[in-house]
Amino acid sequence: LKSSLECFPCFLQQALRAADRFAPSAAVKERIVMSVLKQLQAFDRNRTSPEMGAFINRTAREAVGVADLYAAEKRHSNRRVTAMLPKLQEIIVASPNPFETAVKAAIAGNLIDFTAPGGDVTTPLETLFEKAMAKPLMQLSGDAVSRLQTAAKSARNILYLMDNAGEIAADRLLIEMLPRGRVTAVVRGGPIANDALKEDALSVGIDEVAEIIDSGLALPGTLLHQCSDSFRSRFDEADVVISKGQGNFETLDFIPGKLFFLFVTKCVTVANYIGCDMGELIVSDRLK
Amino acid sequence: LKSSLECFPCFLQQALRAADRFAPSAAVKERIVMSVLKQLQAFDRNRTSPEMGAFINRTAREAVGVADLYAAEKRHSNRRVTAMLPKLQEIIVASPNPFETAVKAAIAGNLIDFTAPGGDVTTPLETLFEKAMAKPLMQLSGDAVSRLQTAAKSARNILYLMDNAGEIAADRLLIEMLPRGRVTAVVRGGPIANDALKEDALSVGIDEVAEIIDSGLALPGTLLHQCSDSFRSRFDEADVVISKGQGNFETLDFIPGKLFFLFVTKCVTVANYIGCDMGELIVSDRLK
Repeated sequence: LKSSLECFPCFLQQALRAADRFAPSAAVKERIVMSVLKQLQAFDRNRTSPEMGAFINRTAREAVGVADLYAAEKRHSNRRVTAMLPKLQEIIVASPNPFETAVKAAIAGNLIDFTAPGGDVTTPLETLFEKAMAKPLMQLSGDAVSRLQTAAKSARNILYLMDNAGEIAADRLLIEMLPRGRVTAVVRGGPIANDALKEDALSVGIDEVAEIIDSGLALPGTLLHQCSDSFRSRFDEADVVISKGQGNFETLDFIPGKLFFLFVTKCVTVANYIGCDMGELIVSDRLK
Repeated sequence: LKSSLECFPCFLQQALRAADRFAPSAAVKERIVMSVLKQLQAFDRNRTSPEMGAFINRTAREAVGVADLYAAEKRHSNRRVTAMLPKLQEIIVASPNPFETAVKAAIAGNLIDFTAPGGDVTTPLETLFEKAMAKPLMQLSGDAVSRLQTAAKSARNILYLMDNAGEIAADRLLIEMLPRGRVTAVVRGGPIANDALKEDALSVGIDEVAEIIDSGLALPGTLLHQCSDSFRSRFDEADVVISKGQGNFETLDFIPGKLFFLFVTKCVTVANYIGCDMGELIVSDRLK
């Protein structure tokens, strides 16, 4: 999904939010925002929003001189969602369709976001989950959830593209409902926003339910041509790819077949593209 | 009131809104937005937001090749509010404090805005007025309304700085409660957003209750050093200046004495500066 002029105010908002949060002085804040402004002038809009997102994050990181700006938030989110797992597990087991409810819990986790315009950083995580679990799933192409369930049953290799820290604890619940021993969980190749890294995946015990690899890319999305060769072969070999988050959707939405997108719509441009509101819990595939 | 980095996303939003509305092609839209983006790089933030607002409007106007983009809206607003005057007049007369109610009606008119971030272009004008009339006035410095009433009684020259078309019809109700023959109404010196020009003032009959002059400046505010000499002497001679709208506040808020600001807060930066919410009906003076 190409970015557009409509994304520009939001890019500046992201820069301002990061600068307000992390810049130690007005001069550093100025440097971050003006640097993003300059980059916008040259930005090729055939490229995707997550690429600009990565630039904004890198700019803030370098200006502030901290390698991983959201390290503390990530640890905090991992702990908080881990503590919710027993309750979520109970809800899943008690529900009429446990697989669908696990999908919903995994998407609810996607609400944890410290940089996207639709990311809610003020509501307690417990409330975020509670509200999300009460919402209906929006399946864009008929019964995508049951198609995912069927495809996963016969798949030899399932690739699970993870998104944010915290969220990955809820992802674990869904992975546990997929065929044992066939899931590979993919984290980012380096610090970017509050996206999950290998240490996050380990801290919520993803290694107990899946192999963990990284994409080779420090970007809030999965741009295949920039990912590592080893990740790309895993992607090619996979029978089913579960893609979490809007950033992965924006960078992979043109890839036909085998992909299932699970995410919350976090900006008006993507919501309009899909034809839904902000904050919807989306499940979409291309196996129509 | 100086602008700030926080204004930048909003400037881009204004450019996008104008471009979406008026650009006949994607190429023209692109030209408008990229031109504003470039200007932001060079923008001296000791300057006020209305100066950038004027640049955005001028850029859109020149790219589209139309001298007055909002001409139709302005005529429409003038007609619609004129049709509401008998009802508003009734409310004023029946109220416990007619002068204060007239002030409120004049501020309610300030909600008519086609370019500001807080401008509401979808709600019918009648509903906008109804809601605003039901809200309390926010007097920033004690009883500013009664100080205005007292100051006006003994003033020889009252300058009334008008803001938007449509709004000026409601302004007429307030002018009618000021000493007859002592009020000069000031419109903009050229087309800018939906701000009132001389033709608008005439169309709602301001000439029947006040002398009409212009500021010599096509800007959504009153930057004294850029206004015409003749306006500046009128400003200096005035005993009381009633300043309508946020743009006039942003450009005149540093002037001590004799000014009474009547406006709706339309952006977060100004609301924070004042210490109130967006959409409040503000009355403020410096005669503390």
